[in-house]
Amino acid sequence: MIAKSPLAPEKFPEIPPIPGVELAGAACGLKESGRPDLFVARLAKGTTVAGAFTRSLCPSGPVDWCRRILPKGRVRAIVVNSGNANAFTGKAGDRTVEHTVRAAAKLIGCPQNEIYISSTGVIGVPVPPDHIADKLPGMLGTLAAGNWTAAAQAILTTDTFPKGSVRTAKIGGAEVTIAGIAKGSGMIAPDMATMLGYLFTDAKIPADVLQTLLTRAVDDSFNATTVDGDTSTSDTVLLCATGAGAKHPVVKSAGDAILRDFRRALLEVAQDLAIQIVRDGEGAQKLITIEVTGATSNAAARKIGLAIANSPLVKTAAAGGDPNWGRLVMAVGKAGQKADRDLLSISIGGVPVTQNGQLRPDYDEARAEAHMAGQEVTFGVDIGLGRGHARVWTCDLTHGYITINADYRT
Amino acid sequence: MIAKSPLAPEKFPEIPPIPGVELAGAACGLKESGRPDLFVARLAKGTTVAGAFTRSLCPSGPVDWCRRILPKGRVRAIVVNSGNANAFTGKAGDRTVEHTVRAAAKLIGCPQNEIYISSTGVIGVPVPPDHIADKLPGMLGTLAAGNWTAAAQAILTTDTFPKGSVRTAKIGGAEVTIAGIAKGSGMIAPDMATMLGYLFTDAKIPADVLQTLLTRAVDDSFNATTVDGDTSTSDTVLLCATGAGAKHPVVKSAGDAILRDFRRALLEVAQDLAIQIVRDGEGAQKLITIEVTGATSNAAARKIGLAIANSPLVKTAAAGGDPNWGRLVMAVGKAGQKADRDLLSISIGGVPVTQNGQLRPDYDEARAEAHMAGQEVTFGVDIGLGRGHARVWTCDLTHGYITINADYRT
Repeated sequence: MIAKSPLAPEKFPEIPPIPGVELAGAACGLKESGRPDLFVARLAKGTTVAGAFTRSLCPSGPVDWCRRILPKGRVRAIVVNSGNANAFTGKAGDRTVEHTVRAAAKLIGCPQNEIYISSTGVIGVPVPPDHIADKLPGMLGTLAAGNWTAAAQAILTTDTFPKGSVRTAKIGGAEVTIAGIAKGSGMIAPDMATMLGYLFTDAKIPADVLQTLLTRAVDDSFNATTVDGDTSTSDTVLLCATGAGAKHPVVKSAGDAILRDFRRALLEVAQDLAIQIVRDGEGAQKLITIEVTGATSNAAARKIGLAIANSPLVKTAAAGGDPNWGRLVMAVGKAGQKADRDLLSISIGGVPVTQNGQLRPDYDEARAEAHMAGQEVTFGVDIGLGRGHARVWTCDLTHGYITINADYRT
Repeated sequence: MIAKSPLAPEKFPEIPPIPGVELAGAACGLKESGRPDLFVARLAKGTTVAGAFTRSLCPSGPVDWCRRILPKGRVRAIVVNSGNANAFTGKAGDRTVEHTVRAAAKLIGCPQNEIYISSTGVIGVPVPPDHIADKLPGMLGTLAAGNWTAAAQAILTTDTFPKGSVRTAKIGGAEVTIAGIAKGSGMIAPDMATMLGYLFTDAKIPADVLQTLLTRAVDDSFNATTVDGDTSTSDTVLLCATGAGAKHPVVKSAGDAILRDFRRALLEVAQDLAIQIVRDGEGAQKLITIEVTGATSNAAARKIGLAIANSPLVKTAAAGGDPNWGRLVMAVGKAGQKADRDLLSISIGGVPVTQNGQLRPDYDEARAEAHMAGQEVTFGVDIGLGRGHARVWTCDLTHGYITINADYRT
């Protein structure tokens, strides 16, 4: 049993019920510990859905299934198990997906292509085909609108705390709510590493618009974080819009001015959940925020930020509280993006470190060290070439990471 | 003081003198410990040279210098200091390069563009311009043909053992020798991470032919290894051919049939040195060899191999002696190369693990575990799509890596 991350938020947020969303969490026996490992969400009729998935070329059966049904853009239920990823389980794994989907569709009374499923946990161990299906009838009886904590707990694997977030937004004067839960701790990298996120809103938004909104929000949140650069077979983020009781004007496009506040709130929820995952990064003792400016494009800035965020040498320096800016220079150099040593400016916790390709004479190392001693570390890197910028989050690389991952399966 | 790597070879090899090569190693005060930190090689007149350098876009001044003079293809001396990388030291760093080169050229009696230099160690701390130059006159008096161990020792940083290798080869019936020294332990990745390698032969080979031979050998050796995926600002491999006393026929092209045995010997020396660097990977307890076959091309196979080799989850599983093949599947999936779950075959230490996208019913986990308990681990990955193959080397990721790198500068 791993202790709770020192970077965990004080408590799980108060999340109100969202019209059209019912949740349940329970134990179905996939976790040997007997802890909750099954989450079900039931959505009101007419709920639209958007999704983002792992870019792994060996994705799990559940991911294949979700991708296949996404074009329809409708969802009536989400079924998620933790403790077993049902990945690389061949035809047996596909059968488990089929049985689960069929059972859920029958119980909910909807077509099979409105049932989304996810699995997370150990790779390569088959789940008996009806193991999850058999638990569903009992689960449905416990569905309730406010079950956020139970839901968030049922999707955890090596996480040390449940993750939730909520914001309200105005669409044309009417208030709507966006809330979500997520899990993730290791195998976390951009392109949807082992992380799962389920976001819900009572706004009424067409599926194609919802997809554009989600894709943009994911780019600047889940896809801007990394724990270890490893990409999972199972990553999934879904955004469901029930439209239940929504009193706002009709939404027509993602760029619609009436959606400005909704976009802000959606990004906040997505970033809050993504950063909570980094805060729960395996062995994490520090949250590291990397602000890249002055790159030739936003995409270049993000690549540079991720090169820094994925560098074991940067992450171990952070673990040691060492303002080792030479390793930041190294990581910028390996990012493969345009950079010029003599234009590069680096700061640590707002303390200017380098200028004109060398250490500033007025560099205040004591202040940088004091900053690095804290739990939240910020690296600023200005490339000095253009206007591209990005923000990326990671955690430090510690003995805890080694302990967790050298012994995970045993 | 870090203990010697458990993967170190029993002893430094016996390397005979190579006609036209004189070596010296000494302490010049850049290492606070007072250990040797300056290596000088003097080469006979007419020696040709080939080089391979870091692909970092923020390379050190010494790398910039070597790249600039390489087109001439001639070398009379190599000057290497350890303890300070002279990287990101701005104009001050450039001055140190100039002073060192000028002093060496004057002492040797050759043009400045036949003096190669390298620096490795801490980034961002300027070296006084004449610090190295002042030590050169004394060094030259100690040059001797057989000083391989002293030379190998003077270039080390966090290495725990000196690295050397030697082979003989026949060119058209005449025997020649190829010998080399190398250093590297962390910040090791393809594209010439912080590693330095100096190879010497008494063969007589034109500079352009030598360059082709070196580039090919580096691709399958130094560039097929990784410790932490971090690319240094300073990586350099040089191959010097003195031609001193060579009695072989004239060499005209790299593809020349009379070079077949030389190519074999060169690759062996390069691989031996590269693998010694991995064996000395920071905190390494296991040497991991990854054999990728059946990819759509050799380049694709190498990318898949490196995705596995750079995966923290694969490397920590190895540290824990855990045959966690699910993490190999994950790493194949994230490599961005064509792969099909259902065609992928994985083996561990020769034990077949998966087939048809799932675990083989006859998988002998006890045998795989026994293999993983050893110091040398082999992962086999057959992609099942084509004939591309590659071999890649890395080490495990252990508590030792964290200890070394969280406290390096302090």
